Amino acid sequence: MLRPLLTLITDFGTREYYVGALKGSILEVHPDIELVDLSHEVSSHDVLAGALTAAGSCPWFPPRTVHLIVVDPGVGSERRVLIAATDRHRYVAPDNGVLSLVFRQDPPSRVIAVEAEHYYRHPVCPTFHARDILGPVAAWLAKGIAVENFGSEVSDYKLLTLPSPVEESGRLHGRVLHIDKFGNIITTFTQRELDEFRTRHPQWRLRIGNKTIERLVQYYSQGAEGEAIALTGSSGFLEIAVARRPASQVLQVSRGMSVVLEPAGGLA
Amino acid sequence: MLRPLLTLITDFGTREYYVGALKGSILEVHPDIELVDLSHEVSSHDVLAGALTAAGSCPWFPPRTVHLIVVDPGVGSERRVLIAATDRHRYVAPDNGVLSLVFRQDPPSRVIAVEAEHYYRHPVCPTFHARDILGPVAAWLAKGIAVENFGSEVSDYKLLTLPSPVEESGRLHGRVLHIDKFGNIITTFTQRELDEFRTRHPQWRLRIGNKTIERLVQYYSQGAEGEAIALTGSSGFLEIAVARRPASQVLQVSRGMSVVLEPAGGLA
Amino acid sequence: MLRPLLTLITDFGTREYYVGALKGSILEVHPDIELVDLSHEVSSHDVLAGALTAAGSCPWFPPRTVHLIVVDPGVGSERRVLIAATDRHRYVAPDNGVLSLVFRQDPPSRVIAVEAEHYYRHPVCPTFHARDILGPVAAWLAKGIAVENFGSEVSDYKLLTLPSPVEESGRLHGRVLHIDKFGNIITTFTQRELDEFRTRHPQWRLRIGNKTIERLVQYYSQGAEGEAIALTGSSGFLEIAVARRPASQVLQVSRGMSVVLEPAGGLA
Repeated sequence: MLRPLLTLITDFGTREYYVGALKGSILEVHPDIELVDLSHEVSSHDVLAGALTAAGSCPWFPPRTVHLIVVDPGVGSERRVLIAATDRHRYVAPDNGVLSLVFRQDPPSRVIAVEAEHYYRHPVCPTFHARDILGPVAAWLAKGIAVENFGSEVSDYKLLTLPSPVEESGRLHGRVLHIDKFGNIITTFTQRELDEFRTRHPQWRLRIGNKTIERLVQYYSQGAEGEAIALTGSSGFLEIAVARRPASQVLQVSRGMSVVLEPAGGLA
Repeated sequence: MLRPLLTLITDFGTREYYVGALKGSILEVHPDIELVDLSHEVSSHDVLAGALTAAGSCPWFPPRTVHLIVVDPGVGSERRVLIAATDRHRYVAPDNGVLSLVFRQDPPSRVIAVEAEHYYRHPVCPTFHARDILGPVAAWLAKGIAVENFGSEVSDYKLLTLPSPVEESGRLHGRVLHIDKFGNIITTFTQRELDEFRTRHPQWRLRIGNKTIERLVQYYSQGAEGEAIALTGSSGFLEIAVARRPASQVLQVSRGMSVVLEPAGGLA
Repeated sequence: MLRPLLTLITDFGTREYYVGALKGSILEVHPDIELVDLSHEVSSHDVLAGALTAAGSCPWFPPRTVHLIVVDPGVGSERRVLIAATDRHRYVAPDNGVLSLVFRQDPPSRVIAVEAEHYYRHPVCPTFHARDILGPVAAWLAKGIAVENFGSEVSDYKLLTLPSPVEESGRLHGRVLHIDKFGNIITTFTQRELDEFRTRHPQWRLRIGNKTIERLVQYYSQGAEGEAIALTGSSGFLEIAVARRPASQVLQVSRGMSVVLEPAGGLA
């Protein structure tokens, strides 16, 4: 008899009582649920960052795991709470697109808008639905209540549009999607987009600010000291890195900056 | 057979070995204890911040949970270690007032000063009582040792005085109690104090620095873009917020600043 | 039937999907493993910091705990992955010296270089061996696979040289090893080195920058307001502290700075 796994992604931070209150309200439903912290440091209100965190971590969990994702700037409003069932997992999240990137890897077989208020904690505090609605709902789900008992199926749930690179006069224009804790620069270019570009332009380079990167490697320590290198990161996006150093500082790059993929010899 | 729940609140931070050593010394007593991290990022030595974290999270846990709270600037000194038993929970903490706000919601039926040194790890390091005293004591408590076996009942334990708003010439003077991770400004005004003031003064406003806030809402996203709003937060205190943005930055507010609740039309 | 304990030390940070992906890949091997977060905030690529975190926390865990330590600037390269078995515990880590300080307390009876690729997740991503190699290997180890099944014994594993104090014309020259979350200044002087020095020089003092510290105490709150004091910390190193305040800020001290232990009356 395995205990049900329930993972947590939030933007609550770790200095507040918010994470503790959420955990308490889940374990109050059933103390035998196994909570697994994925991240509580998603940027505040940053739905895209939450979606990237979920897509990078949730799919690796064993079948039947329940994933609770709370990045919820619309808390208290009429925005819906969703349960999504996929082949492997179940997800609980506000209906704001935070599940979009997970769905690309693990498409939902059913999405439910939660309506069954008897699974909530009462009274419901309008500023803390995680504690009073999403947490308890995820806990009952983990405990074995079937998805269909929580509400009706919907198909008009929100999906984020991930910023996709744009081709313009032979160049592919992307952006910096994220700077990670190591200072690695994650771009919006995917492995597939890079491969296609390289097929057409065997000589290619990346340009960011006034720097160019021409060398594609397999792993970080292949870079020479101080050299900016490109590689495909573990989430499938093209990264710019400097071995053992924060590339974002070395190259003075921040989130949102433009990154250009272009033929190395310049355009004809 | 449920595993005993033991929650952790500390100011140890997450960069050090301190949290790991504490967890090891607990699991060494009994590896089947279920540890639940509430927060390890309480401001260093900040007993009031620890008391607020505990009050916001501990009461939501299921009956019989053991809560260990270590914000302990007096570690090594003669300050006592307490076990408090309430109707629902048991608490282990230094005797410095860190349990004061929990006791308002969940009054203790018994408070014990810990003396039974055979429950400690030996030798006891004078700078790390969490690892050698509080952790093992909490573990033995979670494992089922009765409260009375740890020491004698006391009634002269320390209680914090929460800074309470002061009325002066028709105005109520409070303070900024806390800035949360979202930049929400939590004040020392409670829902009840606001309600009483509004009964007497249906037209009211909050003043902080040179800004005034006149609109009370239910949840954050009711604020217009950039608008400073007031609402009751999930811990019962009046908050000042700006939808999707850090109010503390928008309004340039920091902890400890004065907040005034006053009649909106000015004083007669 | 106790669940196997598996502790985690990484430099992944808590804002990324990395910790979540690692936990997923472990629980996918066996969902009944009990994960214990020790720290994910080791300084990026800082093998010495990881070694200190491991040495301060891992030894306190109960027998048979598996400790996974991932500070791995060489990820993707030919650097080996090790399993070390000691009397009490088993460790999984890259072969870069991160286990050096643990081995001083808990010497390994056997060290294995991992070669058995059927315990890996496939395909293996060259930038994320934690998720695809170290995590699954640690999980299979926790699940009960014997150490010898993972590879061949090695004895040429890397060991760090901890910066040791140097004696020069009657003075002992050390360094600041670490600044902790409280601002305590941990030096490279051990309790034993201090004791030996004090035997020869009953009048002694510490000098750091233009400050001198002459008083050795047992615990932090013995310091007078603003007074810099010395004491032996819980990991056996000499610390410089200021009661309730961050000594590193008060004394303007940063990691790596020189600390001198010298006779108090000056040298003859």
